[in-house]
Amino acid sequence: MSTNEIEHLITVLGRLPGLGPRSGRRIALALLRRRTTLLDPLRDALTAVSERVVECPLCGNLDTCTPCRLCTDERRDAGLLCVVRDVADLWALERGGEFRGRYFVLGGLLSALDGVRPEDLGFERLYARAAEETVREVILALPATVEGQTTAHVIADHLEALGRPVTSLAQGVPVGGELDYLDDGTLSAALRARRPV
Amino acid sequence: MSTNEIEHLITVLGRLPGLGPRSGRRIALALLRRRTTLLDPLRDALTAVSERVVECPLCGNLDTCTPCRLCTDERRDAGLLCVVRDVADLWALERGGEFRGRYFVLGGLLSALDGVRPEDLGFERLYARAAEETVREVILALPATVEGQTTAHVIADHLEALGRPVTSLAQGVPVGGELDYLDDGTLSAALRARRPV
Repeated sequence: MSTNEIEHLITVLGRLPGLGPRSGRRIALALLRRRTTLLDPLRDALTAVSERVVECPLCGNLDTCTPCRLCTDERRDAGLLCVVRDVADLWALERGGEFRGRYFVLGGLLSALDGVRPEDLGFERLYARAAEETVREVILALPATVEGQTTAHVIADHLEALGRPVTSLAQGVPVGGELDYLDDGTLSAALRARRPV
Repeated sequence: MSTNEIEHLITVLGRLPGLGPRSGRRIALALLRRRTTLLDPLRDALTAVSERVVECPLCGNLDTCTPCRLCTDERRDAGLLCVVRDVADLWALERGGEFRGRYFVLGGLLSALDGVRPEDLGFERLYARAAEETVREVILALPATVEGQTTAHVIADHLEALGRPVTSLAQGVPVGGELDYLDDGTLSAALRARRPV
């Protein structure tokens, strides 16, 4: 049927997150049908990021310059250090536009199941970074999962021993959320953390 | 947040069929995280198909040689000519492995709504191909949609005037299909086309 080259492309596409053999075939055909508008731009975009995008040695963000633009932006508050699991979560916070401080990307979460220990993540670098004099507050923006909360707990314990103020994201009702559809844990957490109007 | 290069990659990925901004971001991050196992192979595969894959001038299939391997394979029956809408349908038939003849890819279907007329598709080339002496039977493997059946009807009319035997795919209960879940049209068609056991 199809050639080795096309089959290989389908295989590689099918390894991308969220895709499989069927969507890989569909995308491969679309790429072959629209070479100048789809295939060539994709190849050029891949070449560009492959050659130019590097990990920031300070925060772990991905950018074309080192340190990254977030770390060198003078308008951002160097006193606020936000700890995130990965670059996807960093991007999510940046899309929100609320946070105007600096980041630290852990690159993962502690996990007894997957065998991820503190020394596998950048904890020592985080502690050194948090100990810098400019840092006034460390914000733990980690997932509200068992792994996320375990990791947050370990980091908070250590930083509080260092005398650093540590905060974490509020838990409660999501914006636009119907109480009826909310899980019991979230509802209880929102009730415990209730605020005066 | 992310750089222009990364944002451009996300935009291009989001234009692929079945993907959007969210899946584009997810795939871009996966590519950046796994450069040697994901990004570089994808870029190389794109380069390979871009440089080497061409459309077969005889049947419209995609291959690295002209005419394509299906058209030059002596073990395939040149007397059977199977008309399909596009390369995706050709691949689907080849995966089945049942058909061992030659193909003709129309590249689309007649559509009053989308303004696709007979002269927009390769009808003249198809008629010339079907008129070759080697061709014993033309099999219309077109979708069982309004456009597919209209297209099949127009082709069948013309070829029967030329005295060529024309067949089309059987309609009926899909393999593994529950009668209860089948639409009425398919069930009626299967009943009309009933066969002795």
